[in-house]
Amino acid sequence: MRKICVVVGSRANYSSIKSAMRAIDNHPDLTLQVVATSSALLDRYGQVVDLVESDGFNIDDRVYMLMEGETPLTMAKSTGIGTIELASTFDRLKPDIVVTIGDRFETMATTIATTYMNIALAHTMGGEVTGTIDESIRHAITKFAHIHFPACKDAVERIIKLGELPESIHNVGCPRLDLVADIIDNLDDVDMSPITTEGVGDSIDISNPFIILSQHPVTTEYGAGEQQILNSLRAIKDTGLPAIVLWPNGDAGSEDIARGMRKFREHEDIGNFHYFKNLPIDVYIKLMKNTACLVGNSSSGIRDAAFIGTPSVNLGTRQNMRERGLNVIDVDNDQNAIHTAIQQQIKNGPYPSEGIYGDGHAGKRIADVLATCKWEIQKTITY
Amino acid sequence: MRKICVVVGSRANYSSIKSAMRAIDNHPDLTLQVVATSSALLDRYGQVVDLVESDGFNIDDRVYMLMEGETPLTMAKSTGIGTIELASTFDRLKPDIVVTIGDRFETMATTIATTYMNIALAHTMGGEVTGTIDESIRHAITKFAHIHFPACKDAVERIIKLGELPESIHNVGCPRLDLVADIIDNLDDVDMSPITTEGVGDSIDISNPFIILSQHPVTTEYGAGEQQILNSLRAIKDTGLPAIVLWPNGDAGSEDIARGMRKFREHEDIGNFHYFKNLPIDVYIKLMKNTACLVGNSSSGIRDAAFIGTPSVNLGTRQNMRERGLNVIDVDNDQNAIHTAIQQQIKNGPYPSEGIYGDGHAGKRIADVLATCKWEIQKTITY
Amino acid sequence: MRKICVVVGSRANYSSIKSAMRAIDNHPDLTLQVVATSSALLDRYGQVVDLVESDGFNIDDRVYMLMEGETPLTMAKSTGIGTIELASTFDRLKPDIVVTIGDRFETMATTIATTYMNIALAHTMGGEVTGTIDESIRHAITKFAHIHFPACKDAVERIIKLGELPESIHNVGCPRLDLVADIIDNLDDVDMSPITTEGVGDSIDISNPFIILSQHPVTTEYGAGEQQILNSLRAIKDTGLPAIVLWPNGDAGSEDIARGMRKFREHEDIGNFHYFKNLPIDVYIKLMKNTACLVGNSSSGIRDAAFIGTPSVNLGTRQNMRERGLNVIDVDNDQNAIHTAIQQQIKNGPYPSEGIYGDGHAGKRIADVLATCKWEIQKTITY
Amino acid sequence: MRKICVVVGSRANYSSIKSAMRAIDNHPDLTLQVVATSSALLDRYGQVVDLVESDGFNIDDRVYMLMEGETPLTMAKSTGIGTIELASTFDRLKPDIVVTIGDRFETMATTIATTYMNIALAHTMGGEVTGTIDESIRHAITKFAHIHFPACKDAVERIIKLGELPESIHNVGCPRLDLVADIIDNLDDVDMSPITTEGVGDSIDISNPFIILSQHPVTTEYGAGEQQILNSLRAIKDTGLPAIVLWPNGDAGSEDIARGMRKFREHEDIGNFHYFKNLPIDVYIKLMKNTACLVGNSSSGIRDAAFIGTPSVNLGTRQNMRERGLNVIDVDNDQNAIHTAIQQQIKNGPYPSEGIYGDGHAGKRIADVLATCKWEIQKTITY
Repeated sequence: MRKICVVVGSRANYSSIKSAMRAIDNHPDLTLQVVATSSALLDRYGQVVDLVESDGFNIDDRVYMLMEGETPLTMAKSTGIGTIELASTFDRLKPDIVVTIGDRFETMATTIATTYMNIALAHTMGGEVTGTIDESIRHAITKFAHIHFPACKDAVERIIKLGELPESIHNVGCPRLDLVADIIDNLDDVDMSPITTEGVGDSIDISNPFIILSQHPVTTEYGAGEQQILNSLRAIKDTGLPAIVLWPNGDAGSEDIARGMRKFREHEDIGNFHYFKNLPIDVYIKLMKNTACLVGNSSSGIRDAAFIGTPSVNLGTRQNMRERGLNVIDVDNDQNAIHTAIQQQIKNGPYPSEGIYGDGHAGKRIADVLATCKWEIQKTITY
Repeated sequence: MRKICVVVGSRANYSSIKSAMRAIDNHPDLTLQVVATSSALLDRYGQVVDLVESDGFNIDDRVYMLMEGETPLTMAKSTGIGTIELASTFDRLKPDIVVTIGDRFETMATTIATTYMNIALAHTMGGEVTGTIDESIRHAITKFAHIHFPACKDAVERIIKLGELPESIHNVGCPRLDLVADIIDNLDDVDMSPITTEGVGDSIDISNPFIILSQHPVTTEYGAGEQQILNSLRAIKDTGLPAIVLWPNGDAGSEDIARGMRKFREHEDIGNFHYFKNLPIDVYIKLMKNTACLVGNSSSGIRDAAFIGTPSVNLGTRQNMRERGLNVIDVDNDQNAIHTAIQQQIKNGPYPSEGIYGDGHAGKRIADVLATCKWEIQKTITY
Repeated sequence: MRKICVVVGSRANYSSIKSAMRAIDNHPDLTLQVVATSSALLDRYGQVVDLVESDGFNIDDRVYMLMEGETPLTMAKSTGIGTIELASTFDRLKPDIVVTIGDRFETMATTIATTYMNIALAHTMGGEVTGTIDESIRHAITKFAHIHFPACKDAVERIIKLGELPESIHNVGCPRLDLVADIIDNLDDVDMSPITTEGVGDSIDISNPFIILSQHPVTTEYGAGEQQILNSLRAIKDTGLPAIVLWPNGDAGSEDIARGMRKFREHEDIGNFHYFKNLPIDVYIKLMKNTACLVGNSSSGIRDAAFIGTPSVNLGTRQNMRERGLNVIDVDNDQNAIHTAIQQQIKNGPYPSEGIYGDGHAGKRIADVLATCKWEIQKTITY
Repeated sequence: MRKICVVVGSRANYSSIKSAMRAIDNHPDLTLQVVATSSALLDRYGQVVDLVESDGFNIDDRVYMLMEGETPLTMAKSTGIGTIELASTFDRLKPDIVVTIGDRFETMATTIATTYMNIALAHTMGGEVTGTIDESIRHAITKFAHIHFPACKDAVERIIKLGELPESIHNVGCPRLDLVADIIDNLDDVDMSPITTEGVGDSIDISNPFIILSQHPVTTEYGAGEQQILNSLRAIKDTGLPAIVLWPNGDAGSEDIARGMRKFREHEDIGNFHYFKNLPIDVYIKLMKNTACLVGNSSSGIRDAAFIGTPSVNLGTRQNMRERGLNVIDVDNDQNAIHTAIQQQIKNGPYPSEGIYGDGHAGKRIADVLATCKWEIQKTITY
């Protein structure tokens, strides 16, 4: 029985790996180990670890690694702490393969720890291009990983060019779309009550047009976040439509975004904005299916939105160069430009679904590969 | 004035960057900052930091980062500690560019710290292939670095293939060969007295044939080191020649090597081996010029040896696929095979010099590039 | 010139040492060094470090040490990180004496770091009894400190009984009361506009009777905080008076308190509560001078309140056994008991001032002692 | 079943707690948990953890915590790392009581971790006076501990004076003397072969007079160690007797001692000194029973020596004020003074046994107390 250790570091991580976790757990030749870490453990990000447990997964370790401060300095230090702590975890759990997701500091910490401990590393969502600090991390992790699970075709080609063995690269699609596909197939079952019972601010009737805003700090533009979120909030306010606004993730600069949101809420909000720390994924996907326009810089506006056909206004540099569908309009962090793009998307309405990032069966493929793949712990470049 | 911060983590680091440090320090548009860390601070590696100071460099920070234990677990943890500590150092020194050397855990820690703190990273000796854990680290660092100083031609081509901007890659040669060239030009000035006054064991007359052994642990073969060094020591003993034996570096597994050396010394040494913790580089280079054969798995046996023309027997996997000259015979960690290869090299004698890894002017080129180069802190892959 | 390094870890710390910092800075034989750490660096505690700077003090180092999570586990880890980080700070600043305040985890971290680095430690507010985890920490720090600045007479006696040299103990009073005295002398100068322009919830007219609530988690009652704060809020609501409510400090359990406050605000608040993350000390003291009753478990309700004569209802175990004046009524965390005690205090009105914790000249005394005191770095118990 | 977690951090720790571990393991109402940490994990201190396992104890966790460097700075940092790491261990093992031994940095780290995690702490060897940095640590730990196991009568009285509850103090004697008593009762069974087969230098015939030297760095005299050990070695050399010399522990300054030993060995040793990294305790005790004189500053020269009746010359300040028997002569770190004292002890011969530090039944008493004791997790001082 191969022991497969999945490291879940955030809500986004979890929805990007949950279907694979289920498939690993159900596979006769695999034993699943789950490590919850980083923002997945924190109350202010909605205790994702509790959700993982309530989904029936056993948590093998809880690894606190985030330093307070949310500056570039504390982000570096959090990565260092994560490396120290996850090394102990892997030393104790002795997995055959560690699965790490994406490109964040818990991903980097996981990678360093497994590398020095001679444990095989599988990486999901490698090979994508975004033009941010996350991109450097993503490609660096590719150079450490032994098994690659990219989510789209251009990512596969990029990983090959990076000198990885073609037989180590498995084009499985994004496991998050497995969840999205499942939710879209069962939209009537989604309990939408959190929309009215949770969050802060006025409740919103989603049978009428509304906007979603999901905007995160850009770590290389540290200090600009407050103005950036204010531009977006004001552009949305100008449309007159009600809006659902999500709090930012925990990257360096999130306090700037949060401060902008608080200022807007206290001084400019005329009562049709509703702020959520987080939403269950099924509620979120149903909102994406219904929204007049999704605004922000979340990858969801590129990836989920392509599959669902959500009209999307993508802001600034955070998703630069990520492969995208016809449903996306890219604009700068400029109030007028944002307003114009939103109006255009409202006018257009929903787009047809595109399968760029997967067909809804990624999890099963990942488990099958993990059960049978081979690797050399000492990697070498192909050229 | 650009502030250039050089992180020195070991004796090998220092000799690989010293000529560049001198050139940076002397450059009218650059200010040199020096951070000593990792084994460069430790008594049992000969207090390299004192040497740096006695060479006239000011030490801006001393960063302890090594955990005792020398297991894969503590190696991972040391990297984490280094990340935490170096982040504070860079936060305080506020360099424009950090220069990191090679592929070791202080290199990795330096890289993570600068990356999250949005500081430009220059990397020396990228793009080389060795087939070990260090290779993954080296290529990953290339994906983080903004300015590349590879030491040889095939390394340049590999960095381009890795998707780095060609204008960010500067084929300067290895700065260590600047030192080697200088020593070779002044062999008569070298004070060889450490050969007789230091180390443990019988003194050796270097006017007669002798062998050098320099063997380090292979981190992916943790646990095998004791037998590996015993094979080498016994093969050398069988030649009947006296030998100079160097203690291993501080990688995971070095205690195994050291234990093997102690056992040999106490029970099998017949009195013609001399053990050194370390040697001044000029003494070492003069020994390489004079030795009948250099045995081991140090990169010096590939790089310095090509330039000097030293007959070299390279052991096992540690230097796999590194570009090499005609002077190298590769063998497995097998006593008989080692013995045969040594005999062949003794018979052959010195080889002609080859310039694969540089012409002795790398340091000056590095300083000139650092004074004028441009970079985008947000990197993106070229394909 | 003796170098005196003051470590400021929180808003409370700062007001407890500010007058001493001023006196040290002005002393001809002393050089002040200021290290800001722990919650003093965090936005969500109101960036105390900015306040320190705007008061004209230079910040010699900023040391992040808090891990996110606010559980007992992360509290222990934060202390460990603080020890690691502060050791580097002291190594670089090379103070002759480090001044540490009170009994929190940054105090403990400061103490361990100075102890192993053979630096003299001065400790303020030692010798007090509270019956909480902080008490153990406080007495332990006394056993490490070389110079003691207790704030009241029974604390002096306790430090002597703990086996410290009588000549190392200086009964100076609490420097915080230096600030309080100064504010009370100039009440008309206090700018009370933050009461109306900041915080969340309805503004309060302080010329009419109002209540203050300041309640922190009890670290040894982890998990009970939500119910505890709800009891207090409901008891206050029952009085019908408006209230000013302060957010808790960052101890383990503060998220419980915060959650209780948010629940109350969203579901039970009828519109006469005003919530503040923090208040300038002069505003806070003027509120204490005017309030009908201060409720909670903050030490301010014991110490400042004695000096000011504020009617105070002290809740639960957090201030157990601290010397107190006639102005304090102690009750359990029980809604009815709290309500009854508040009513009694409202009826009573203001009390006469008592000087138990100082006369307003502590800072000057501390600086004078630091300039002339002697110590043996190797301490030994007096019995 | 109460879970009792014993933290073993060094060879000295282990011999000071082994008999209690055995008694806990055998007790029907207790479950033993063993955590190996600090120098107990390191090869260069002889892998004490292997000895613990070969004695039949299961190791529940191995916690690396030592930073390389052995300076005051790294000592502080090691304590911080230990706190971080041990907190995770206790979080996972969830002991009812943690047992910590003595006064070293792993003891301090253990104490901080348990304190913030609300776990009861039992402390052995509290209340003793030595006049070193260890003494401050020891008394501070007393102020955190809930259950006290002092080894001698004056220590009991001191703990009471420190304000601890008399019913929490149990005068059990030192468990190390349980081992010593057992060995003394079975001297003929001791396998003395390590004396000839291990160590470095000439073998020694223990049927003829010989001297033992066991000298550790004094952390508050950092930098003086090299001269101190040279004084001792030369004084012993002057007697003409052969000597068994033990390597120092891992405190700050141990490299100084080690350097002094290496210099002596290489340049002044005339061939009758035998150097041991460590010795099995039974071998060591039999040597103490046979030696003409034990020289150094180890506590063994005070405690074990009193029980065995070994003539002992105690050097310098490290054991200042520890209760001692008639068998001890105290001298400064002065070559002539040491020589004179050794001569006097050789002339005197063995002393009668004294029971100051225990009667050989401490372990059993400790287990019985741990099985039945009560405590309040919130401590308060008795005055």
